[in-house]
Amino acid sequence: MKALVIETPGVVRLREIPEPPLPEGECRVAVTLAGICRTDLELARGYMGFSGVPGHEFVGVVTAGPAHLKGKRVVGEINAPEPGPDDAGKRPHIEDPRHHVPRSVLGILGRQGAFAETLTLPPENLLVVPDGVPDDVAVFTEPLAAAMQILEQLKVPHGPRALVIGDGKLGLLIAQVLKVHGADVTLRGRHVGKLELAKRWGVAIERADGQAATDAFPLVVEATGSPRGFQEALRRSAPRGTVILKSTYAPGELPELDAAKVVVDEIRIQGSRCGRFAPALQWLAEGKIDVRGLIETRMPLAQGAEAFSLAARRGVRKVLIEIGAAN
Amino acid sequence: MKALVIETPGVVRLREIPEPPLPEGECRVAVTLAGICRTDLELARGYMGFSGVPGHEFVGVVTAGPAHLKGKRVVGEINAPEPGPDDAGKRPHIEDPRHHVPRSVLGILGRQGAFAETLTLPPENLLVVPDGVPDDVAVFTEPLAAAMQILEQLKVPHGPRALVIGDGKLGLLIAQVLKVHGADVTLRGRHVGKLELAKRWGVAIERADGQAATDAFPLVVEATGSPRGFQEALRRSAPRGTVILKSTYAPGELPELDAAKVVVDEIRIQGSRCGRFAPALQWLAEGKIDVRGLIETRMPLAQGAEAFSLAARRGVRKVLIEIGAAN
Repeated sequence: MKALVIETPGVVRLREIPEPPLPEGECRVAVTLAGICRTDLELARGYMGFSGVPGHEFVGVVTAGPAHLKGKRVVGEINAPEPGPDDAGKRPHIEDPRHHVPRSVLGILGRQGAFAETLTLPPENLLVVPDGVPDDVAVFTEPLAAAMQILEQLKVPHGPRALVIGDGKLGLLIAQVLKVHGADVTLRGRHVGKLELAKRWGVAIERADGQAATDAFPLVVEATGSPRGFQEALRRSAPRGTVILKSTYAPGELPELDAAKVVVDEIRIQGSRCGRFAPALQWLAEGKIDVRGLIETRMPLAQGAEAFSLAARRGVRKVLIEIGAAN
Repeated sequence: MKALVIETPGVVRLREIPEPPLPEGECRVAVTLAGICRTDLELARGYMGFSGVPGHEFVGVVTAGPAHLKGKRVVGEINAPEPGPDDAGKRPHIEDPRHHVPRSVLGILGRQGAFAETLTLPPENLLVVPDGVPDDVAVFTEPLAAAMQILEQLKVPHGPRALVIGDGKLGLLIAQVLKVHGADVTLRGRHVGKLELAKRWGVAIERADGQAATDAFPLVVEATGSPRGFQEALRRSAPRGTVILKSTYAPGELPELDAAKVVVDEIRIQGSRCGRFAPALQWLAEGKIDVRGLIETRMPLAQGAEAFSLAARRGVRKVLIEIGAAN
């Protein structure tokens, strides 16, 4: 089958590779559409020493699996528990497949990803996409779930003031999620077009290259991927405030932690990764979230390497890769 | 009056200084006994550019103030709201005098401290000490309140597994608080005598210079004051775990934040400072906490400089300074 493969850092190449064997009890999915995420760009640069097929935002059709899924259009949760030595000490204290040790993560860790004609996942990871939700909307289920994870972690009441730092793909989604949830949201960013988009959702905007802003927020989300974004997030957090950390940083670029600020103001820094798919798909089905405005372009798998180059350019929105027959 | 004064970094000196004027509506307290805390040692080394009289752990007797307090033996909350420009943006979203902006903090920020014959505080900061609680127990109210703040921040249920890193004065108190609260507590430290003390409270111990431990905990408290302690705390946190940060670090020694660990494992890093006095004094009155075992020695105010030197030595427990007539 055809797939985008990272073999050496910095090189994404279209290759013909053997279709992966179908593990017992898992489903095979023919991928239709897949989105490029910042994590994919980091993997391409060598993050986690990754090699193989990246891609974890996808829509596809089940070609092998249990009867209730076969032929169905699906999206899929990316974390899958794997059998392994009983390592109780490293297990989470809250049982959740997203944190199972050991686990595989689609296109990230121990499992080939979605920039390929087919992928495999356990049936319990797959959710059937309602008919009314087209592929280019459903493909946002994974990043939307990650954005909505913030609501689960905080039990955010309606109406807090929130600052989202970074107008990238995830930052835009998060600003929108918090706004829909009822928060009074400000988005700080560098890209006029994206900030104008956010304005249309009723989000207040703040130019990152404008005057230094000083007002503090009870909730600040760092989604820049830059250590300076983290320092800005901490600086703008009100006493007893929460900083949601969505960014990882390149090794050698880790931010210093201003512990005095964290301790004196009793700040909570909350790491946040993947969320549940069901509520995200529900919000998409209800049309609560504008994802079409987030799409930069669609490109065929054959131009996958160019798609990666485009997605890595500053200010570019979501680049989608067309793989199978579109719906 | 006599007082210990920091004028230049590194120098603590006994001086004769004018008694501070009594602000309208405040109380004057004749200090009886005061404890040296790590923050005092940091202030003496130049933290926050401090100059003046340090000291914020004290017991004393009210000599001027409202009738219901006059002549009473008291301890005192150290944060006092101060009038100032309306800086709403920096205010906490939860009203709490401990986070009022602006505020003064006894012996730390804008208010002379307790290593002096007298100090002043607003009456609402003072709590009368029950007769059954001697001075050398009551003087632990402030650090015990800071330790118990962890319970308020987490709503810790009975029985979680917790790792406390650092067997210093605050680490020992925190280990004891969590144990009394019902947690299964391990204390990691370097000092045999202190670890033996913790063992007597039913706390499991872990030698910091022993084999590298790997088991992870849902709750980890960093109380070493060393950037390496912070890295160890993060390393030992289970997925979805919480790291309580009690330490500030010297400028130039700030730890790097391993954002990938925080994000992937969805760790919560929670800064923690001062706690409420009433529950702390209650626990002391009920004899729930052994503080006598935490005392290294008592020295008179005249030997205050030597007391600071002693307190700064590794492995030394709480050094108390006798100021007025002891009870």
